[in-house]
Amino acid sequence: MSRALDLGYATLDLDRVRRQGVPEVVYAPGKTPAEIDGIVTALLAHDNGPVLVTRLDAGPAAALTVDGGRYDAAARIMVWRPAPPRSTRVAVVTAGTADGPVAAEAAAVAAAIGLRVTEIRDVGVAGLHRITARAGELAASDVVIVIAGMEGALASVVAGLVACPVVAVPTSTGYGAALEGITALLAMLSSCANGITVVNIDSGYAAAMAAHRLAVAMERAGTNRAGS
Amino acid sequence: MSRALDLGYATLDLDRVRRQGVPEVVYAPGKTPAEIDGIVTALLAHDNGPVLVTRLDAGPAAALTVDGGRYDAAARIMVWRPAPPRSTRVAVVTAGTADGPVAAEAAAVAAAIGLRVTEIRDVGVAGLHRITARAGELAASDVVIVIAGMEGALASVVAGLVACPVVAVPTSTGYGAALEGITALLAMLSSCANGITVVNIDSGYAAAMAAHRLAVAMERAGTNRAGS
Amino acid sequence: MSRALDLGYATLDLDRVRRQGVPEVVYAPGKTPAEIDGIVTALLAHDNGPVLVTRLDAGPAAALTVDGGRYDAAARIMVWRPAPPRSTRVAVVTAGTADGPVAAEAAAVAAAIGLRVTEIRDVGVAGLHRITARAGELAASDVVIVIAGMEGALASVVAGLVACPVVAVPTSTGYGAALEGITALLAMLSSCANGITVVNIDSGYAAAMAAHRLAVAMERAGTNRAGS
Amino acid sequence: MSRALDLGYATLDLDRVRRQGVPEVVYAPGKTPAEIDGIVTALLAHDNGPVLVTRLDAGPAAALTVDGGRYDAAARIMVWRPAPPRSTRVAVVTAGTADGPVAAEAAAVAAAIGLRVTEIRDVGVAGLHRITARAGELAASDVVIVIAGMEGALASVVAGLVACPVVAVPTSTGYGAALEGITALLAMLSSCANGITVVNIDSGYAAAMAAHRLAVAMERAGTNRAGS
Amino acid sequence: MSRALDLGYATLDLDRVRRQGVPEVVYAPGKTPAEIDGIVTALLAHDNGPVLVTRLDAGPAAALTVDGGRYDAAARIMVWRPAPPRSTRVAVVTAGTADGPVAAEAAAVAAAIGLRVTEIRDVGVAGLHRITARAGELAASDVVIVIAGMEGALASVVAGLVACPVVAVPTSTGYGAALEGITALLAMLSSCANGITVVNIDSGYAAAMAAHRLAVAMERAGTNRAGS
Amino acid sequence: MSRALDLGYATLDLDRVRRQGVPEVVYAPGKTPAEIDGIVTALLAHDNGPVLVTRLDAGPAAALTVDGGRYDAAARIMVWRPAPPRSTRVAVVTAGTADGPVAAEAAAVAAAIGLRVTEIRDVGVAGLHRITARAGELAASDVVIVIAGMEGALASVVAGLVACPVVAVPTSTGYGAALEGITALLAMLSSCANGITVVNIDSGYAAAMAAHRLAVAMERAGTNRAGS
Amino acid sequence: MSRALDLGYATLDLDRVRRQGVPEVVYAPGKTPAEIDGIVTALLAHDNGPVLVTRLDAGPAAALTVDGGRYDAAARIMVWRPAPPRSTRVAVVTAGTADGPVAAEAAAVAAAIGLRVTEIRDVGVAGLHRITARAGELAASDVVIVIAGMEGALASVVAGLVACPVVAVPTSTGYGAALEGITALLAMLSSCANGITVVNIDSGYAAAMAAHRLAVAMERAGTNRAGS
Amino acid sequence: MSRALDLGYATLDLDRVRRQGVPEVVYAPGKTPAEIDGIVTALLAHDNGPVLVTRLDAGPAAALTVDGGRYDAAARIMVWRPAPPRSTRVAVVTAGTADGPVAAEAAAVAAAIGLRVTEIRDVGVAGLHRITARAGELAASDVVIVIAGMEGALASVVAGLVACPVVAVPTSTGYGAALEGITALLAMLSSCANGITVVNIDSGYAAAMAAHRLAVAMERAGTNRAGS
Repeated sequence: MSRALDLGYATLDLDRVRRQGVPEVVYAPGKTPAEIDGIVTALLAHDNGPVLVTRLDAGPAAALTVDGGRYDAAARIMVWRPAPPRSTRVAVVTAGTADGPVAAEAAAVAAAIGLRVTEIRDVGVAGLHRITARAGELAASDVVIVIAGMEGALASVVAGLVACPVVAVPTSTGYGAALEGITALLAMLSSCANGITVVNIDSGYAAAMAAHRLAVAMERAGTNRAGS
Repeated sequence: MSRALDLGYATLDLDRVRRQGVPEVVYAPGKTPAEIDGIVTALLAHDNGPVLVTRLDAGPAAALTVDGGRYDAAARIMVWRPAPPRSTRVAVVTAGTADGPVAAEAAAVAAAIGLRVTEIRDVGVAGLHRITARAGELAASDVVIVIAGMEGALASVVAGLVACPVVAVPTSTGYGAALEGITALLAMLSSCANGITVVNIDSGYAAAMAAHRLAVAMERAGTNRAGS
Repeated sequence: MSRALDLGYATLDLDRVRRQGVPEVVYAPGKTPAEIDGIVTALLAHDNGPVLVTRLDAGPAAALTVDGGRYDAAARIMVWRPAPPRSTRVAVVTAGTADGPVAAEAAAVAAAIGLRVTEIRDVGVAGLHRITARAGELAASDVVIVIAGMEGALASVVAGLVACPVVAVPTSTGYGAALEGITALLAMLSSCANGITVVNIDSGYAAAMAAHRLAVAMERAGTNRAGS
Repeated sequence: MSRALDLGYATLDLDRVRRQGVPEVVYAPGKTPAEIDGIVTALLAHDNGPVLVTRLDAGPAAALTVDGGRYDAAARIMVWRPAPPRSTRVAVVTAGTADGPVAAEAAAVAAAIGLRVTEIRDVGVAGLHRITARAGELAASDVVIVIAGMEGALASVVAGLVACPVVAVPTSTGYGAALEGITALLAMLSSCANGITVVNIDSGYAAAMAAHRLAVAMERAGTNRAGS
Repeated sequence: MSRALDLGYATLDLDRVRRQGVPEVVYAPGKTPAEIDGIVTALLAHDNGPVLVTRLDAGPAAALTVDGGRYDAAARIMVWRPAPPRSTRVAVVTAGTADGPVAAEAAAVAAAIGLRVTEIRDVGVAGLHRITARAGELAASDVVIVIAGMEGALASVVAGLVACPVVAVPTSTGYGAALEGITALLAMLSSCANGITVVNIDSGYAAAMAAHRLAVAMERAGTNRAGS
Repeated sequence: MSRALDLGYATLDLDRVRRQGVPEVVYAPGKTPAEIDGIVTALLAHDNGPVLVTRLDAGPAAALTVDGGRYDAAARIMVWRPAPPRSTRVAVVTAGTADGPVAAEAAAVAAAIGLRVTEIRDVGVAGLHRITARAGELAASDVVIVIAGMEGALASVVAGLVACPVVAVPTSTGYGAALEGITALLAMLSSCANGITVVNIDSGYAAAMAAHRLAVAMERAGTNRAGS
Repeated sequence: MSRALDLGYATLDLDRVRRQGVPEVVYAPGKTPAEIDGIVTALLAHDNGPVLVTRLDAGPAAALTVDGGRYDAAARIMVWRPAPPRSTRVAVVTAGTADGPVAAEAAAVAAAIGLRVTEIRDVGVAGLHRITARAGELAASDVVIVIAGMEGALASVVAGLVACPVVAVPTSTGYGAALEGITALLAMLSSCANGITVVNIDSGYAAAMAAHRLAVAMERAGTNRAGS
Repeated sequence: MSRALDLGYATLDLDRVRRQGVPEVVYAPGKTPAEIDGIVTALLAHDNGPVLVTRLDAGPAAALTVDGGRYDAAARIMVWRPAPPRSTRVAVVTAGTADGPVAAEAAAVAAAIGLRVTEIRDVGVAGLHRITARAGELAASDVVIVIAGMEGALASVVAGLVACPVVAVPTSTGYGAALEGITALLAMLSSCANGITVVNIDSGYAAAMAAHRLAVAMERAGTNRAGS
């Protein structure tokens, strides 16, 4: 009953779908195109569900040979066999235009695993009316992913406006005292707003996977309550 | 339609229940017992829902005069008007005995706002069978709060075992290179496991409030799906 | 024409009023009551303008023997010969109740050097309507001192609302990732809002002195334009 | 009465002139030339006042297509519709030749928004007579921007010489223990001189905008006093 | 009886084999190919045992002229006169595919000095069954080298499974809060598992040399006990 | 076949002796005397081998009630049922007198688990002849534990003198730039000497447990070779 | 010909006077009064030259029993057998009154080893005329020890005024961004002035010993040139 | 009597030779070849003594047009009008071959200002006999410059061997925990050896200038004592 597949350069966890609802996601840096091809082929053959490669630059993406993948250059991800739509609604909100690539990753990963995504861009707190004008869209979401660099204040403001889960993604946008995202990371962790949770710097991916965990819990809740 | 109450030393946000489902929670450090009494009295009078004071040592707790509060010395919180039970189930897991006070805070805050709490203590990864033996309890939870200091590895291991949301709380347990919790914080943010989210060091409170946000989303999901 | 006075343990800069409009301010830590008495006596005798001792705890304050000083326990300052009122209006704004002592220092120093002070307390961004409700008071100020710990987001929000100078004071309020004020400091320096300036952690004093420099510039401007 | 314009990749704050006297300034990094063109076009069409793009390298600058802009290669900014001259006088002072690009940005932004700029270059404290010889120019200023890397000592020395506001800009000049500007930043925040305020590393832009806020306050003061 | 050889640009320690059982190992960065050739020639002529050059990129490797070396591109090392096999068995375990180059260095250095190497790759803790399935191979080792980046949790888990020495190598794999290996380093030093020892970030070399020291002790023990 | 014992406040790993040769060691901070008593009683009843409590101050030590323990005040440990002597020889070397408490912990833990300990104290590198005079004792050891604070240079020097494993323990001795042991930690990890391994700051305990792992490997080697 | 004396808790380097001109200096923290007595007795018996104990608080000082020592409470040192006066002149300069204790240590150690000391106190750069007025005294010195906390700018200014060696001592004076002396330390190391050297935070002792090394070199130079 | 020359991009301190014995040294980074030419021309025309440009890469060096300079590629400096030989003897000692470029800078600057230089290379502490074998050369020096990266232990060892001034230069040699020289810097500042002084990372230049200050003091001492 072996649920791990040893490829020599990688040991695939083929039990992941059973435990977590999605297969292993492939992180491209440090892997050759041939290794990525091998992993993707094995996941498509031995596993179910969407197959994703993240942090994949256009060059290596073009070198991949497995058929059927769809590359998203802004998000730097490639997807095979995307998941069918699910009911969980995710809002992806950015403070500035420069946070766009992280938002693209979050949105593309979320979409690939079946979540419903709304994007709200460039609504940083220096002009508060930009975010308060979007309160309706925020309220209609099951989870809000807030993506901000520099001082990361948008996460606190959004978390003060909504009751649902808020996942904050600090970005490396900014310079000097922004410390390549460390400042936004620390600020989000120190937020005066209740119950914000935080993922790694620039990790739109991690935020989308946190949203996936929420979707799992919500779907079980929906099933259980509907059925009880 | 002013929903803020100015007490001079504090400006209460009386709109919080409408926006987020719970009133403002009072953080005790830096406030005199008289100020805490004043805030609690106002929240009981002008607002609905549970009233909590956190990080409250036994000395100041004894100096409070508002009736009806219940003090939990291990968790260092006092609660008035606790919420009725809700359906969301929270597992609070610790790596070591020394993480106990943070777990106590998480559990007490979660209980005060109506969540169902299970505690699993001292199951750090140096003896893996301790945590794998509890897989059933973990699987029965809607959200798992993992509390660990030192290297914080338990969060990655637990997140690999369950599909639901995992909120990691780094603690200041340990010495030297543990850097008063910074190491566990950075490690949890860098986890190889998918979709972990992280809150501030030693903040059982923040984790419980993140669980509250999840409960809000799940209850809406349960309602909507049940009714659709 | 010596404008420095050597007391052995201190060398007083008696030229300070001529150059900057206020005498040397005495920082109490590391000085004995006798040394403080000596410095205050010399400043009262050889210099003009208000004489201030800052960061002065109640114990040492009681041990001072120079007549005529007025001690402010909340601000931990003692003042002799306060300046007459000037026209510059300063708003001192805090994010939370725990920031109160820093605000008290800022307000007391500002008042002692003649500035007009308005205090707005506990208007952190988790409940935005608290600060937007005070927009009128902010607009009536010549300079706004924003005092916040944790993630320090209030500085960005206030700076987005007003056109006048904003001096941000990070405080050591908070724990864990707040890093005793370093996080708020870095966040304020990285603010997405234009033209915020920042002073040292917990230094209500520095913010008040920055306001004093502004008052000097404004008074020269008023004089020059009125007279031209 | 919508005062925000959604361009998809950006949400422009068209209320900025009313609130702060200048329109949004465009930060180039992370934006394509087409996006910058779009934003500039919209600001010229829907807003008043100077339109600036900062941190704009020569390559992208050449790719812009909106007419009428003037590019300053040393300052790396492009300006459309510069503001008419105002009365506030800004001295921009550097410690060393290597601080020149930051000074250029400060001076160019200040000039574009109408301030009167004097530049004093390479007057670091290792040869004190270089800065004391310029005391007259400093005294004639309404605000002094001090730009220094390495140990940043010039800010303390200048602040000891003048009564007006001093905005310190740490630069990334230096190596090793200079920590790419962090050392100068911390040193300026810890200055023994009164009332220095500090902005982000290498941000000539932030210093100029702080001077703009001062100009707003001074102009109101001049108007009010002259008219009273 | 001089046991140091002065080459001008280097002073070779020719006493190293006597004291430690292996000659000096050449660290390539900062040395020209000609200097490396000179050192290798001298070591081959004046000393015994394997001669290794580490951190040697393919370009400089191709420029070397000393005969008889064997270059390992994955490990970036070149070896002359490898040691005969010894009895000590080393397991080299990695958490992820991206840790491969560090594992290659550890394995190649260990092999060059005569140790018996087993490699176990990509068995990170997010899928625990991958490492527990290899328990037999781990138990058959005299020392386990655990190589992991990100949060480095694999070291704690492995150390909980085996009784023999565990040498942990943090790697710079990961981004953001992984801090280029600092996080894994601190986490491994703070491990809740007993008696883990740690070497420098990305230093497969240091781990292999620690294994060499162990082999020396074991061989003495084997000799002494067998002979007693 | 449950090998974990749930005490409520702790979950004991009773499988530890089988896996690693020693039972769980009790870390006192954060545990009440009653909890320590409970854990020690359970370990004595359900497990074999030495039972140790570390970081135990004299006050709590006196409050313990389990018979038969022996308290070592210098090492701050209490031991029940010490192990019989084994053949592995450990040298514990300190750079200065102030490193004594860490050396005491290392020596006491090592002795309690049966290792043979030699102590060499106060032989820091500022007077090299102090350590070179002890070369014979070092050469007679199977493992050397080097304990040093400040710059930690002794570890590099000792590792250059011996062929056997060197475990370096940085201490918090020193002030200012010593950064409470961080400097010695980083220095030891960056050593120019081959194959040094490092444990956490001030952790004489961790070094002794690393020596225990070595003893296990050596004993297996002795057995195997003697028997083969 | 043993020149090291093993006291059990300490190994005295009795060769120090021959190599460096002064005996070992005893650092009190971490040593009992009995240990200090033992070391002092041995140094007085077996060695020549002044015997010093540094960082010695009044309590332990009173507990010492060796006759003939002279305790300096401000400097926290005790001295036996002070050295006769030598020709080297040391100026000890402080930026503020709070730097006094570090200056006291530097001056007392320097005097005990025979150097000629001049003290100049509280001449920080915020009032430049205070230090420029002392230029004559500085010029008459062979070495200047500059002691400053906060931003440490005085070191750069003094080094720009004199040609002789400047030893900078950062102090932990200040708060917040002063980082307990780290900021002054980094600033002094990054100084724009030529050839400043730096010692550890608050180490008046290290600066005095650096001056001693200079005195040795100067005396040799004086002897050699006078005799040649 | 103006002793500063304003070139627009630079303000030359022409009083430097009078105050410190050497003219301003030109730091190349951030200056164009034309600016360097202008500064060098002015220094040659208006000042006495050696003119140096440091950190000058070969490309810019070739672009300079002022006659008579001599470029040292290893040291990356160019020198015009070198000083005549003086009597002060400087030993420049490195721990490893990779520290060579810093040693080259130190030696070249020292030679250009007239000091007598001896170089001792690659004598790190892992093979102690390499440095102890050179004790005679060290003893014949007036000042020893010790250059080391990684853990920087060589500085402590050398300072224990000699009585004269020791200037330690940390280098950025190494990786991981070496933190680009920060570790060696902190270690040298925390040295257990007496009276070491430290300069900035990789600054062979600063060490040479510190040696220059020593030479000034020694020459005055020689003159004064010889003449008295």
